[in-house]
Amino acid sequence: MQDKTKILVTFPNPNPERDYTVIHYAPEFTSVCPVTGQPDYATIVLEYIPDKICVELKSYKFYLQSYRNDGIYFEAVTNKIANDLIKIMKPRYLKVLAKFNTRGGISSDIIVEHKKRK
Amino acid sequence: MQDKTKILVTFPNPNPERDYTVIHYAPEFTSVCPVTGQPDYATIVLEYIPDKICVELKSYKFYLQSYRNDGIYFEAVTNKIANDLIKIMKPRYLKVLAKFNTRGGISSDIIVEHKKRK
Amino acid sequence: MQDKTKILVTFPNPNPERDYTVIHYAPEFTSVCPVTGQPDYATIVLEYIPDKICVELKSYKFYLQSYRNDGIYFEAVTNKIANDLIKIMKPRYLKVLAKFNTRGGISSDIIVEHKKRK
Amino acid sequence: MQDKTKILVTFPNPNPERDYTVIHYAPEFTSVCPVTGQPDYATIVLEYIPDKICVELKSYKFYLQSYRNDGIYFEAVTNKIANDLIKIMKPRYLKVLAKFNTRGGISSDIIVEHKKRK
Amino acid sequence: MQDKTKILVTFPNPNPERDYTVIHYAPEFTSVCPVTGQPDYATIVLEYIPDKICVELKSYKFYLQSYRNDGIYFEAVTNKIANDLIKIMKPRYLKVLAKFNTRGGISSDIIVEHKKRK
Amino acid sequence: MQDKTKILVTFPNPNPERDYTVIHYAPEFTSVCPVTGQPDYATIVLEYIPDKICVELKSYKFYLQSYRNDGIYFEAVTNKIANDLIKIMKPRYLKVLAKFNTRGGISSDIIVEHKKRK
Amino acid sequence: MQDKTKILVTFPNPNPERDYTVIHYAPEFTSVCPVTGQPDYATIVLEYIPDKICVELKSYKFYLQSYRNDGIYFEAVTNKIANDLIKIMKPRYLKVLAKFNTRGGISSDIIVEHKKRK
Amino acid sequence: MQDKTKILVTFPNPNPERDYTVIHYAPEFTSVCPVTGQPDYATIVLEYIPDKICVELKSYKFYLQSYRNDGIYFEAVTNKIANDLIKIMKPRYLKVLAKFNTRGGISSDIIVEHKKRK
Amino acid sequence: MQDKTKILVTFPNPNPERDYTVIHYAPEFTSVCPVTGQPDYATIVLEYIPDKICVELKSYKFYLQSYRNDGIYFEAVTNKIANDLIKIMKPRYLKVLAKFNTRGGISSDIIVEHKKRK
Amino acid sequence: MQDKTKILVTFPNPNPERDYTVIHYAPEFTSVCPVTGQPDYATIVLEYIPDKICVELKSYKFYLQSYRNDGIYFEAVTNKIANDLIKIMKPRYLKVLAKFNTRGGISSDIIVEHKKRK
Repeated sequence: MQDKTKILVTFPNPNPERDYTVIHYAPEFTSVCPVTGQPDYATIVLEYIPDKICVELKSYKFYLQSYRNDGIYFEAVTNKIANDLIKIMKPRYLKVLAKFNTRGGISSDIIVEHKKRK
Repeated sequence: MQDKTKILVTFPNPNPERDYTVIHYAPEFTSVCPVTGQPDYATIVLEYIPDKICVELKSYKFYLQSYRNDGIYFEAVTNKIANDLIKIMKPRYLKVLAKFNTRGGISSDIIVEHKKRK
Repeated sequence: MQDKTKILVTFPNPNPERDYTVIHYAPEFTSVCPVTGQPDYATIVLEYIPDKICVELKSYKFYLQSYRNDGIYFEAVTNKIANDLIKIMKPRYLKVLAKFNTRGGISSDIIVEHKKRK
Repeated sequence: MQDKTKILVTFPNPNPERDYTVIHYAPEFTSVCPVTGQPDYATIVLEYIPDKICVELKSYKFYLQSYRNDGIYFEAVTNKIANDLIKIMKPRYLKVLAKFNTRGGISSDIIVEHKKRK
Repeated sequence: MQDKTKILVTFPNPNPERDYTVIHYAPEFTSVCPVTGQPDYATIVLEYIPDKICVELKSYKFYLQSYRNDGIYFEAVTNKIANDLIKIMKPRYLKVLAKFNTRGGISSDIIVEHKKRK
Repeated sequence: MQDKTKILVTFPNPNPERDYTVIHYAPEFTSVCPVTGQPDYATIVLEYIPDKICVELKSYKFYLQSYRNDGIYFEAVTNKIANDLIKIMKPRYLKVLAKFNTRGGISSDIIVEHKKRK
Repeated sequence: MQDKTKILVTFPNPNPERDYTVIHYAPEFTSVCPVTGQPDYATIVLEYIPDKICVELKSYKFYLQSYRNDGIYFEAVTNKIANDLIKIMKPRYLKVLAKFNTRGGISSDIIVEHKKRK
Repeated sequence: MQDKTKILVTFPNPNPERDYTVIHYAPEFTSVCPVTGQPDYATIVLEYIPDKICVELKSYKFYLQSYRNDGIYFEAVTNKIANDLIKIMKPRYLKVLAKFNTRGGISSDIIVEHKKRK
Repeated sequence: MQDKTKILVTFPNPNPERDYTVIHYAPEFTSVCPVTGQPDYATIVLEYIPDKICVELKSYKFYLQSYRNDGIYFEAVTNKIANDLIKIMKPRYLKVLAKFNTRGGISSDIIVEHKKRK
Repeated sequence: MQDKTKILVTFPNPNPERDYTVIHYAPEFTSVCPVTGQPDYATIVLEYIPDKICVELKSYKFYLQSYRNDGIYFEAVTNKIANDLIKIMKPRYLKVLAKFNTRGGISSDIIVEHKKRK
């Protein structure tokens, strides 16, 4: 899989003197099951407290779209999205919640949380 | 009752260096009342923080389906599902919430929580 | 008022080695206002952590039905249900929430909570 | 404005040996804006832990109705309701939440909380 | 951008002896994206514990309306609203939650919280 | 069963020159299953176009309450309510919808409609 | 009761060449029960097809507010609102739906419909 | 498949002189996919106008439960339920709506309607 | 007011041989009250059956945005949107529903319907 | 674009002697905007009365999935789905409703209806 962090554009946090929270709700995430080749669908909720850097919204949308035809498991994709954003933004706090649609009668959430080491 | 843990398939946790949460919502659980022989229906919500092992989703579905014609009480089945998953995964944290449909005008939840001894 | 605890049937807690929670939602409770004689309607939510004893669901239904033609106040009936169940089960924890329907444009909740003395 | 506490009728707490919570939801409160003369509408949620005294429900309804043609601000009326009930009941805990309907496209909540000094 | 705090009218807190909470829900906020010129829409939820000063509701409405044709980013406008209100009211506590409508399939919340230094 | 129509009080239709519709929603109906003795619960929706006579609301409430301890089947009670109201009011149109709560996992509606012969 | 139609202000229909529908939802109507003196609350939904005349929204609000302290029955007030608006506007079609809040556990709708004689 | 109509118990229509409608909502239907052996879940809504015969509710519940381990397609089971009930009751009107849960991301309704030949 | 139809871009109906329906939901419409200068907010629902011409979605968005700072009444703007679209597309059928947010406690719908003369 | 009808598998209608309705709800449809290359998302609701042939559910899922990376307009894709299914099944009745997610603040429905010529 290519290095998707190159898709992400950042900008300097306009209010770094204060802790504040940004939440982006992206209900149209889709990737492909690596075993069956069937599409998976999820809502990705990204919540973070920026430090010096914020992620630009449009580039984040393109970043999520880049998974459209990738075969990747639920646990792996959620951890990868968190890792890529932590690498690029070094946020004070970050959480990624991925809510996957029902498959075989069971729906699943994966929740990854990260706190900056002080 | 047979040892149902043999139905469960596991795979190594791809991100064991981090605590993260997995939640599976299974709204189509059914078993049979051991006294009346009438079917019971429940939603089973499994939440866990994996340690070295995750449970594979499809085998978990088959595990839940294996109760379809078993006669078993609300409290017993919820504790048994928790015990089987704890035995197989040895998770850092696990919770099973079973929400049973109305019987005689009363609906019931059973909630079992487990934290790994450190 | 007769001793209603005789209606309640109990059984030994099948998993006393673990704290777990049982919740029963009973939306069809009805009694009578002791002043006006008008019927009152409530949802009774019983939540408890069993110690050595659980309450059997069908007998609990008959227990609640036994108030059908009793004249009793909101605060009194909620405390009485809690007291009867505490007496019979000696639970580790117990909460009774009674949500009464609108009377004169005002609806009311009564919430009684009990923790076992250690 | 007259002393409205005279409208409130009380009765002795039937279970003073235990902390328990009473909540009254009153969705039909109305008063008048002191500036424009226009009617205001609110839901008043009263939550309290009684000490020795409870407020009788019907008199509480008449108490709230007595504001029907009074000109009074959001903040003032919420604090006044709390103060009148504290004066009459001396409760262990009391909260008044007033949820006012939209005015000029903005709706407002006022929340007053009181804990008894020990 | 002009000094918008001049639009805000204040009045003395009628109950400064007590901490209480005021919440204003304003679902009709609109500004303009500084890059594309497209309108943005948000619900602004202001929550605060007044100290000596409250903000008058009608002037707050006009304050929010003054952004109607301003080009300003999500993060910037939320921090600016918080800063302007802190400057004018010096509240004991203040939170601004801005819930922006979907843009490019992603909706966003910005949450700024402020506690008075003691 | 006694003649319950004596409970119903009527008043002259104040606008007989026009067809208009009256609907009363009564969500707190309860009677008893004639076989099991278990209580049944229903919402009764009465819709009618008055001719010369309307039914007074409070007496209608007492009429419905009079079934509280009667043993009667779903189909029978719905038809009886319709017949009693038709006898008393001779309305231009009348419909009774009884929505019974879940029993044995199945909930039921009974709908009786009546049009005046011209 | 005074002639309330004087409160209503009208303006010429700007598009009389076409049938179109206007609906006004007024959820804050209140009057007083003529028997008990207790306040009644309703949502008034006015739907009409204007002919030559429309009713001005602000005056319609004042018209509805004028019932605030009037003692009047459900059926009477709904027919009176319809009659007053028909007299003033002579609309091609008009419907008034009044949805009254629960009283004694029963809520009520009154629906009056009018079609212009051709 | 055995003749399931033997499970159904009937009783004489108590009000055959009038057309009225009976609706039974059964949200706990389950059968098995004949191809994959996987369980299917549906809500079955039966609506009918009885002629001389009604179906007894408890026997209808047992009838639906008898499909629990039968392998049968969506279209076939819905038509079979309708045919069995038509055969037993010869109703004036009958409709069966089966709402099947999501399978492979697609949920399905099957609707069968029957009118008595006159 | 300028001729806004110049903003609208059209394209040939790709399936003119069949009647089919297009509905566009635009929840972010805003204009200005011509009397008070206060902003108004509405959801505009456009439904039409195209004849030879369809309206391009992006240009329709810009068309609606062009009202942002125009002073115009509810009835007038709804009729004008309908008229502009009829002029440009000559559709077989067209309906415009404008749902305006609450003003002074009253919310309003305006519904304009058009059928092509044959 | 390839002939997608080859993906569709059919089976003989098991109950051709009766008109009955089949509805399939597919909330996970996605294709690509032919102009911007951005993904579009829709729920496709297919309703039909089969004649001699039904469409097999799994093949219909694969058929919808085949649009995943196709560039195609809203109106075109809805008409194409309808045409392909009409060609394969020759149903007595067919309707395709496509509900597209918000783009630029506007969401859209396309509704195509077909009745068999007799």
